[in-house]
Amino acid sequence: MAETFVIAQGGGPTAVINQTVVGATLEARKRFPGARVLGALHGIRGIRDGHFVTLSELSDEQLRAVAATPGAALGSTRDKPDDAYCESILDGLRKVGADAFVNIGGNDTAGTQAILADASSGRISCIHAPKTIDNDLVENDHTPGFISAAEFVAGAFLSLDLDFRALPGVYVGIVMGRHAGFLTAAAAAWSLDEYSAPHLVYVPERTFERARFIDDVRATMSRHGRCIVAMSEGVVGANRRSLVEELVPPEMQERDQHGNIRLSGTDLGQAVERMLAEDLPRTRARVDTFGYLPRGNIATINEDDAREAFEAGAFAIASAEKGAGSAALHHSSAGTIFRLVPLSEVAGKTRHMPSDFLHPQEDRVSEICLRYLARLVPRKFAAAKPFV
Amino acid sequence: MAETFVIAQGGGPTAVINQTVVGATLEARKRFPGARVLGALHGIRGIRDGHFVTLSELSDEQLRAVAATPGAALGSTRDKPDDAYCESILDGLRKVGADAFVNIGGNDTAGTQAILADASSGRISCIHAPKTIDNDLVENDHTPGFISAAEFVAGAFLSLDLDFRALPGVYVGIVMGRHAGFLTAAAAAWSLDEYSAPHLVYVPERTFERARFIDDVRATMSRHGRCIVAMSEGVVGANRRSLVEELVPPEMQERDQHGNIRLSGTDLGQAVERMLAEDLPRTRARVDTFGYLPRGNIATINEDDAREAFEAGAFAIASAEKGAGSAALHHSSAGTIFRLVPLSEVAGKTRHMPSDFLHPQEDRVSEICLRYLARLVPRKFAAAKPFV
Repeated sequence: MAETFVIAQGGGPTAVINQTVVGATLEARKRFPGARVLGALHGIRGIRDGHFVTLSELSDEQLRAVAATPGAALGSTRDKPDDAYCESILDGLRKVGADAFVNIGGNDTAGTQAILADASSGRISCIHAPKTIDNDLVENDHTPGFISAAEFVAGAFLSLDLDFRALPGVYVGIVMGRHAGFLTAAAAAWSLDEYSAPHLVYVPERTFERARFIDDVRATMSRHGRCIVAMSEGVVGANRRSLVEELVPPEMQERDQHGNIRLSGTDLGQAVERMLAEDLPRTRARVDTFGYLPRGNIATINEDDAREAFEAGAFAIASAEKGAGSAALHHSSAGTIFRLVPLSEVAGKTRHMPSDFLHPQEDRVSEICLRYLARLVPRKFAAAKPFV
Repeated sequence: MAETFVIAQGGGPTAVINQTVVGATLEARKRFPGARVLGALHGIRGIRDGHFVTLSELSDEQLRAVAATPGAALGSTRDKPDDAYCESILDGLRKVGADAFVNIGGNDTAGTQAILADASSGRISCIHAPKTIDNDLVENDHTPGFISAAEFVAGAFLSLDLDFRALPGVYVGIVMGRHAGFLTAAAAAWSLDEYSAPHLVYVPERTFERARFIDDVRATMSRHGRCIVAMSEGVVGANRRSLVEELVPPEMQERDQHGNIRLSGTDLGQAVERMLAEDLPRTRARVDTFGYLPRGNIATINEDDAREAFEAGAFAIASAEKGAGSAALHHSSAGTIFRLVPLSEVAGKTRHMPSDFLHPQEDRVSEICLRYLARLVPRKFAAAKPFV
């Protein structure tokens, strides 16, 4: 009987996660003629419940159309499986005769794969294919999905800088990122020059202090006549608790099955707006929460990101014969190359921004960070410097 | 002595307002060799204070680079001139020997031009060139700046629909628009089909009722498993006051010189989030305020919009010999054509969405609205329908 592969998606969608699904499907078709590729609907939940779509029945053309579409075409889940759930996933995989299971997601998904690999005693190859706009997977130079989201953020901050040159004021853009500030730092990728936005950058890796923030906004306003701030939703206060956790009454706090508090609300934005109104009255200040806009936006699908996500899926299938592992993106002089690393190296771990990505004294990104961003998210648009 | 033209920008920047500046400058150069074109910095304030840049000294290449850049390169202002201020503007125009003054902006800007035209007794041609992402100028089929902003909104809602198919829930995106719902309606421009986002649309033209909103969200969730809502920042309650005005304590309300209350805050988003948490507990709900992201975003500059904005500037210069007036975009079978209409026809008036742009019973846009949007903002990206 021909090989059977199961593919699933976990966690938040991205602009290019479908590329990984299709990269895996087409690689399976190429390497194993007659192979059956099943897409599990809504991730591991679909495996448990027997909900699949047969991807290998689709034409190359249909698959390419899926690949080019943002979002998670198979549906996703944030279920955190306990032992019984894991057993039901293995049952589901056995029922369809799966030889390998490619699960696309972040470090929670890698954790699920590690548990399944152990429980199946190696009879089903459990491969993790990386995906996250947060760019927070260890062992990876960067992760599929990050570049496209970063391109949205880079373009937005360049544009906001131009907007606030014309009508001066303070602007704070709050960007997704629970524990890692990479996506927020991407606000600096297309900065016109050292005087341009983002003037201040706040990430979870460095403690946020209100008094220092206000002082720095005031100083930036008097120097440049505008102050554009990039802030991660996951910024933390002096006690290392997230600001959202401090701001939102416990009864209003929402947590997922992994125990993560919901950060993607309006609370942080409103709190920052109030801070500015209280401490800098008579200063025009605007706060927007970017929220879901950067993460799977069809207007900013980056071609390199799409290609790498596709290749991550193909590499996962090509690796399946070697057993379990996580496909990791490594940077080399020849560009991005893939390596299979042990699941335990990736599972449950968070990659933070290296400390040298931040300016040692100021709340800005460093030259090292700018070089990293320039490599991943090269400037796409020219912009003339305004007359004001 | 050669002709002298003054150009200024007023109100919020857009993705293509600089095209209008450059269209005017290049047209002046073509029609009146040796003409001097002065750009006023920060709008009428720059004329009053004698702050200009000499645009006619720039090369075509430099000007084209400015044109391609979003934001208002000359700077803008929201000053509402009183009689003395108007007199100082006229003084400023006379001081530089202006033969014509092209002021780019919305209906407030048209109002300024009407006052100046009267006060100068026709000695200086005061032309209004249209600009607004709100698309709310009477006498215009649509306005430069709208299409690019609409393209951002259209792509965002298509993308958000795909995101919330994968991880079901309620999403509300709040879109700029004080009195007119055109930009919010643009959320429907790239909808995949009648089951796709936006499922509900709330605009200033129709009264918002909380109970009906909640009922409709609940019904949509049970029908489609997700509910994507497009809401104007300017939605009004039963008493025809804006929700923001009702929600924000008077001491926190901020108004501009035109008496307009600031809507671009976090208050409406937070209020909607609370409504959903109270009335639909245990339903995943997310609210983002798009805020400034659509208005001059470098990632979604639409080519037709850029061309028309350029032509609006050129037409303004070509019309200057006829005296005062407002350049208006008219739709014809041959595409967009320009007409000069009396300033009084445009000044201070707001174009609302025609009532037949909304479904008579449901809070959705109508087929007529979809056809209008399809003409202006044709679908730019293909998207495959997800499996879930």
